[in-house]
Amino acid sequence: MSIGVAVLGSTGYTGAELIRLLDAHPHFEILHLAAHSQAGKKVSEVLPSIASQSANKTLAKADDVLPHDVELVFTALPHAAAAKSVKKALDAGKKVVDLSADFRHPNLINYQDAYGLEHPFPELLGSSVYGLTEHAREDVAKTNLVANPGCYPTSVLLPLIPLLKQKLVETSSIIIDAKSGTSGAGRAAKTDLLYCEINESMAAYGLPKHRHAWEMEEWAGAYTGQDVQVRFVPHIIPMTRGMLSTIHLNGKKCEQWHSVLSDAYQDEPFVNVLPLGKLPTTGAVKGSNRCEIGVVALSEAEAVVVSCIDNLLKGASGQAVQNANVMFGLDEMSGLSINAAWP
Amino acid sequence: MSIGVAVLGSTGYTGAELIRLLDAHPHFEILHLAAHSQAGKKVSEVLPSIASQSANKTLAKADDVLPHDVELVFTALPHAAAAKSVKKALDAGKKVVDLSADFRHPNLINYQDAYGLEHPFPELLGSSVYGLTEHAREDVAKTNLVANPGCYPTSVLLPLIPLLKQKLVETSSIIIDAKSGTSGAGRAAKTDLLYCEINESMAAYGLPKHRHAWEMEEWAGAYTGQDVQVRFVPHIIPMTRGMLSTIHLNGKKCEQWHSVLSDAYQDEPFVNVLPLGKLPTTGAVKGSNRCEIGVVALSEAEAVVVSCIDNLLKGASGQAVQNANVMFGLDEMSGLSINAAWP
Amino acid sequence: MSIGVAVLGSTGYTGAELIRLLDAHPHFEILHLAAHSQAGKKVSEVLPSIASQSANKTLAKADDVLPHDVELVFTALPHAAAAKSVKKALDAGKKVVDLSADFRHPNLINYQDAYGLEHPFPELLGSSVYGLTEHAREDVAKTNLVANPGCYPTSVLLPLIPLLKQKLVETSSIIIDAKSGTSGAGRAAKTDLLYCEINESMAAYGLPKHRHAWEMEEWAGAYTGQDVQVRFVPHIIPMTRGMLSTIHLNGKKCEQWHSVLSDAYQDEPFVNVLPLGKLPTTGAVKGSNRCEIGVVALSEAEAVVVSCIDNLLKGASGQAVQNANVMFGLDEMSGLSINAAWP
Amino acid sequence: MSIGVAVLGSTGYTGAELIRLLDAHPHFEILHLAAHSQAGKKVSEVLPSIASQSANKTLAKADDVLPHDVELVFTALPHAAAAKSVKKALDAGKKVVDLSADFRHPNLINYQDAYGLEHPFPELLGSSVYGLTEHAREDVAKTNLVANPGCYPTSVLLPLIPLLKQKLVETSSIIIDAKSGTSGAGRAAKTDLLYCEINESMAAYGLPKHRHAWEMEEWAGAYTGQDVQVRFVPHIIPMTRGMLSTIHLNGKKCEQWHSVLSDAYQDEPFVNVLPLGKLPTTGAVKGSNRCEIGVVALSEAEAVVVSCIDNLLKGASGQAVQNANVMFGLDEMSGLSINAAWP
Repeated sequence: MSIGVAVLGSTGYTGAELIRLLDAHPHFEILHLAAHSQAGKKVSEVLPSIASQSANKTLAKADDVLPHDVELVFTALPHAAAAKSVKKALDAGKKVVDLSADFRHPNLINYQDAYGLEHPFPELLGSSVYGLTEHAREDVAKTNLVANPGCYPTSVLLPLIPLLKQKLVETSSIIIDAKSGTSGAGRAAKTDLLYCEINESMAAYGLPKHRHAWEMEEWAGAYTGQDVQVRFVPHIIPMTRGMLSTIHLNGKKCEQWHSVLSDAYQDEPFVNVLPLGKLPTTGAVKGSNRCEIGVVALSEAEAVVVSCIDNLLKGASGQAVQNANVMFGLDEMSGLSINAAWP
Repeated sequence: MSIGVAVLGSTGYTGAELIRLLDAHPHFEILHLAAHSQAGKKVSEVLPSIASQSANKTLAKADDVLPHDVELVFTALPHAAAAKSVKKALDAGKKVVDLSADFRHPNLINYQDAYGLEHPFPELLGSSVYGLTEHAREDVAKTNLVANPGCYPTSVLLPLIPLLKQKLVETSSIIIDAKSGTSGAGRAAKTDLLYCEINESMAAYGLPKHRHAWEMEEWAGAYTGQDVQVRFVPHIIPMTRGMLSTIHLNGKKCEQWHSVLSDAYQDEPFVNVLPLGKLPTTGAVKGSNRCEIGVVALSEAEAVVVSCIDNLLKGASGQAVQNANVMFGLDEMSGLSINAAWP
Repeated sequence: MSIGVAVLGSTGYTGAELIRLLDAHPHFEILHLAAHSQAGKKVSEVLPSIASQSANKTLAKADDVLPHDVELVFTALPHAAAAKSVKKALDAGKKVVDLSADFRHPNLINYQDAYGLEHPFPELLGSSVYGLTEHAREDVAKTNLVANPGCYPTSVLLPLIPLLKQKLVETSSIIIDAKSGTSGAGRAAKTDLLYCEINESMAAYGLPKHRHAWEMEEWAGAYTGQDVQVRFVPHIIPMTRGMLSTIHLNGKKCEQWHSVLSDAYQDEPFVNVLPLGKLPTTGAVKGSNRCEIGVVALSEAEAVVVSCIDNLLKGASGQAVQNANVMFGLDEMSGLSINAAWP
Repeated sequence: MSIGVAVLGSTGYTGAELIRLLDAHPHFEILHLAAHSQAGKKVSEVLPSIASQSANKTLAKADDVLPHDVELVFTALPHAAAAKSVKKALDAGKKVVDLSADFRHPNLINYQDAYGLEHPFPELLGSSVYGLTEHAREDVAKTNLVANPGCYPTSVLLPLIPLLKQKLVETSSIIIDAKSGTSGAGRAAKTDLLYCEINESMAAYGLPKHRHAWEMEEWAGAYTGQDVQVRFVPHIIPMTRGMLSTIHLNGKKCEQWHSVLSDAYQDEPFVNVLPLGKLPTTGAVKGSNRCEIGVVALSEAEAVVVSCIDNLLKGASGQAVQNANVMFGLDEMSGLSINAAWP
């Protein structure tokens, strides 16, 4: 079985990962690659890492007509631009996994506050599914439109949801101190993303309220029925890939949290709760679609939970493929690695 | 004026920085360099970075007799080993700046809990001064023994003390999420400090209670008369130098915190409170003895304070020289840079 | 079809890559993992990157008896130690891919000069095949013992052999200036491999004659019937993976070299000759089993050839799996990626 | 004594280093800082590393009138733009150290070939001095215009000139394989200089003939009276600072080269010939104005010479200050470090 796929926005870092994953996927086949600024070039000119079947494809424009035989469209386009391509693809009867934020916020006011944009197609929000796969599998299987979660929210919601569901966490004092590799900032030519500015330096950013804080609060609430407030401080770190979220929590029965999380994810191939007392490293998930979680109880009422993902995989393109696998009834692990390359 | 100096423990990273700083210092002159494991070698064999007057000196053993004309001894030795050398130097009438933890804890039980060591000379604790220079200048000027603060405590106490003094901070909910470059872990040959293990990876460590948490609590309390509890989570980051502490705080009048800190440090050359709304980067202090502080009020009762230092300078050898300058009545900035090399 | 495999020496960097590749391989199945120093531990304790079926295996000792159902053994052991394990495996009727240098030198004197070791089983040298796959496919298919090439020789011989075969290169003035990521130096705890010593620094090493120079000369000669001398200067670079060899050559008809190489490798999936005038980057092959080659003619008689590989893949474990695929008549690309992750 | 200084082009990486060095210099005082694109901003807004007296200065435009009391002008402007500012400064009676290439080429045709520019003021070339300080001290002391050498030429000419002067080197087969940290590529926002593109990757570039090859040939010839041809291949390396040139040479009496170089530089504080058999690392010169040289004879007729500098210091701003010291009769080492920070 071969399912025809288009990737719109294929020359940024998430696009590059989609091409790598899909060209090695046993069931999906890329038929159409598009990019706004690089249209007309060959893929390998823009992405020298690609030597597989897509390497010689010519990049189309993102708003070109989609080929007839495409069944699935990945949109890795800027916010708001994505929504237009999503609408076109849905209207043409395609399934869509959207990696932008455009369909992540059922609450339109949050979207507007976080992104400063008017949503072009609010009527589509009702039919989209927020694709945190482990917690949305059944809905993902049925929808035509998956809103692929943001990287920070993925790294935070996976450890938080099972604890919240058990009502073990004080929801008004959640502090998330997150650290991201630089690939999360994208591929645009900006002085402050130059090698020499990032290397051997680190900084906090995004205060007072980063876009992803809304997403975390909205979905932590939606999944668990609680009113969740987070204080979220992201940092940029001199490394390419890797995201580590240190979650400082108050609550109760903290000594039991490790087993709550272990139980919740024991059958999940892409979520690994480390043995009690162990803390994860991002190096152990780099290149994989795995999330690793460590838990340390400081007292009965205080705990630190640390989670690690590869921001471009479980935090973006890997989870997008995971969702696509579910949408088409494939083995959820198809085309994805649970192992990291070491070193 | 030339003041004879000895550096004991001169081939680790803090020792290397002491040699670099002291050989360029207008008033101190290194007469004696010692190191346990490398004794007998020339300095430049062990530290290829040194081409100044010390380069051709032969490394003595740390417990050799100190030359008669040494007036000041820096001890950059392992905890407990340092105490013995400090004792000898004091007995011989020298002044001492000790970079180990041996004299940082007036509360012996804390020392024992944090380091798992019996203190060999508890009677000396009474005469040592904790050298957070900006807050201990007068005492440093009078003592023969400065306990040079730890890197994490320096980065945390500088922003915290003025706020605590004004009773603006809720002392029971202080969360410190700190990130350190790898040089803080020292120069010992360990697998988990290899380039390939550290590069492109990051991790939290030191839980449930890192040694420096006791030091922060003890001195935050001592300086301000309050009972301070910190939850402290340090992280190791793939960069050589740089320390960033993100301090998540509750309190009151947070909108005023920026001016409290600006006022407190307005005359301090080595502490720079950034303009309101700006956040510091470690790159801006790398190679300098500067601490940079940024403050963001999230609400009237919640704030984030971020501080950056070079862990080997203001966090170790730079502050050691700053203290030595004060001990000998020199210009406090002698031999120290407030600028960083960029990039 | 499932072919039982053992990996001896599985906790170094090449061993870690073998586990990652083999656990995702459609036809090989790891039955036995061994390591000298880490025997008794679980794989995931030593390699936190592994979460696949091998993660929970217990590491045996490298000289334990091999399970009956193992058909293939990878030896990623230190030089000389490897030979003993190879002998045992061959005696037990297994096929072997040896990643050490023990069977790379038909000329025993070269082996002795390069490694300073007496060879324990010189009689086995006659039956081993040097596995530069693209140039040894037929012999690899027939042998029980493949000597997997060194990383530097792989990066040099691939571009050099076709040019030498056409007698276009002056064989007495070959200069190879090679640069390697630090993973090539292995996982042993040494001060000069610490993160802080490698990061932000580079150096030449291995002069006057690095071990791999003999290997290059011997095999360039063996494949082409010429007496080849190389001047080889390797460098260590602050990055984890990646090897770039800049080959400075004199010869004739240099304008034709690009087409000679393009023709030689046009059907090879793992060797990519870039368009005329383009130069390769190691980033484009990181994580892949690809070798990329660029050629620039400086004049009719002078040229620069640059090649890039991932030193742990095409330079070690990737080529080992490629050879294993050939030995068992499998698709040569099975379990190997031609794409790199970008970034 | 305080000598008033202007820096034109002060917000790139060489400009930043000039500010850092000059603000700590005992005799120079910055009166005027200019930058094209950042005019109107405060220095600390563009260079967060600067907290010294220049931090609060407002950046002027590079073509504004120079203050009356400036005696010395550093031009760190783009090629061709620099020449105009140099002309204006000379006309106003100032001394100038120009860090661009505009006055490095007495041979106008070389300038034109290398930079593709028409020279605006060829008449000034006669009065400029090429400031490779160790070999031009007397002329530098007398001139009003120093053309500060390029980074690669500095790293190559320092080791090469003494050997050429002794007629020990075959001048037709010089091969230079050079590696540079990324700061050499400047601070302009370009996709291929982004952190994620440079990190964990390396590449050769600049073929067939990089601009600096002309400069090397011209000055190797001018200093030694020989016709020197170089084959020069530069590489970009994932590190911020550091330049290593591996010079592959044929010649005669190679066993004596080490003592030729040692003798030539024995009294030079900024050039250090390592003990026989030792090879330099860039880490040992990072942040210093030192050049380190290692020599290995491969035979009587073949040798490898390796040199290391910090490309922004001895390769640019450090040497510029060294030249300025000479021009004003100051201690040549004023304001410059021979030690590197380690690590």
